[in-house]
Amino acid sequence: MAVAWFYLSVLALLSLGMMCILFTTYWMWSWHGGFAWDGTKLMFNYHPVLMVAGMVVFYSAASLVYRLPQSWLGSRLPWKIAHAALHLVAFILTVLGLVAVFKYHNEAKIANLYSLHSWLGITTVFLFACQWSLGFATFLLPWASMQLRSLLKPVHVFFGASIFSLAIASVISGINEKLFFSLKNATKPYSSLPGEAVFANTTGMLVVVFGLLVLYILQASSWKRPEVGITTERQSLLHERE
Amino acid sequence: MAVAWFYLSVLALLSLGMMCILFTTYWMWSWHGGFAWDGTKLMFNYHPVLMVAGMVVFYSAASLVYRLPQSWLGSRLPWKIAHAALHLVAFILTVLGLVAVFKYHNEAKIANLYSLHSWLGITTVFLFACQWSLGFATFLLPWASMQLRSLLKPVHVFFGASIFSLAIASVISGINEKLFFSLKNATKPYSSLPGEAVFANTTGMLVVVFGLLVLYILQASSWKRPEVGITTERQSLLHERE
Repeated sequence: MAVAWFYLSVLALLSLGMMCILFTTYWMWSWHGGFAWDGTKLMFNYHPVLMVAGMVVFYSAASLVYRLPQSWLGSRLPWKIAHAALHLVAFILTVLGLVAVFKYHNEAKIANLYSLHSWLGITTVFLFACQWSLGFATFLLPWASMQLRSLLKPVHVFFGASIFSLAIASVISGINEKLFFSLKNATKPYSSLPGEAVFANTTGMLVVVFGLLVLYILQASSWKRPEVGITTERQSLLHERE
Repeated sequence: MAVAWFYLSVLALLSLGMMCILFTTYWMWSWHGGFAWDGTKLMFNYHPVLMVAGMVVFYSAASLVYRLPQSWLGSRLPWKIAHAALHLVAFILTVLGLVAVFKYHNEAKIANLYSLHSWLGITTVFLFACQWSLGFATFLLPWASMQLRSLLKPVHVFFGASIFSLAIASVISGINEKLFFSLKNATKPYSSLPGEAVFANTTGMLVVVFGLLVLYILQASSWKRPEVGITTERQSLLHERE
């Protein structure tokens, strides 16, 4: 893979990820009155922003650490720590996102965890917690044998991509649900596609495009550490430094 | 992979796939009055059933054709035809599912294609149509060179799994949306988790479990055609016939 193509893809990915967060923030800021950590509706507004930032954007950054050619040389330990630390940041943002919606629901006496969006979302976060803990115990702590690690690696990789896909599905159903709530009694209902609907639908589609791009990079062989003895164009990124 | 494990997995997959269709049908039959191809609400009820049958279950069956060890021997052409034919069945069911919702909307003067569910769903079906046509033109018609085929194969495989994942996300947001509609003015609203809500949420989670199982089998190396010279336990399925 050409070096220019690599940098272009990283730039596209970074821009798209930033746009996902910015669009969700703008949606909550412009049509729902902004943010406050106070148990009111304004506290709910943190929920979509923190879930997109945590479960989508930071989760992606953490997953893609091993796709940087710099991670292919020398000790793997610093990269493992970066992978686990970024996922921990993603997890903390996610938990804060959950606190935002639970606290708002509890203050407003709204039931928790009844919609399919919430069932799928909470399952996704639970799987993420299991995946992080198991990954930490197996791949970072020194007790696990190489045999156990190579046995669990494909499972870890599969669940990594699966949890991300479930997060995307949760985000889509969440945006859809929020729009049905907020445009229910509006003079311009969701079905008449007012500005908010077009903007939030677009945000959802942007998250989908970003998600597909991340999943493509995660599975494409040209983005993976090359086998020993095979030199790729992308390795010139490393050789240029020597 | 042990032979017993293979048959157990196929049985589990078939049962889960059947359950996804049966649960969706029972939901529409038991809580929404059943089915009629007449432009009324009863016509809409075909929509969830046909989408789950087409985009999830038949799509999976079509995708998994090459995971049967029987497909690893002899000419690939009959298996390619089976792959394309099953996907065509999936596509026809999907189009009928779209006809059901569009005709109902048009008769009832409800706007089409405004929710994020519909935006994502229609994009998924459009990508499926492109994928089928391109796959047919490249891998079944004889004009494409082996070089072009091996260049396009990873793209075809990636989009195959991606379209399936988008279909799952569309189904989840669709079930969620339908429940908010149908339990809006009910004496027991969605938030009080009446029988219909628990049943339809469970159906959605079942579709997710089925989807993850299919995606796991699609990417697991133990389910793929082995490299030349490597014999796997699963190949005894073939040798037993010799």
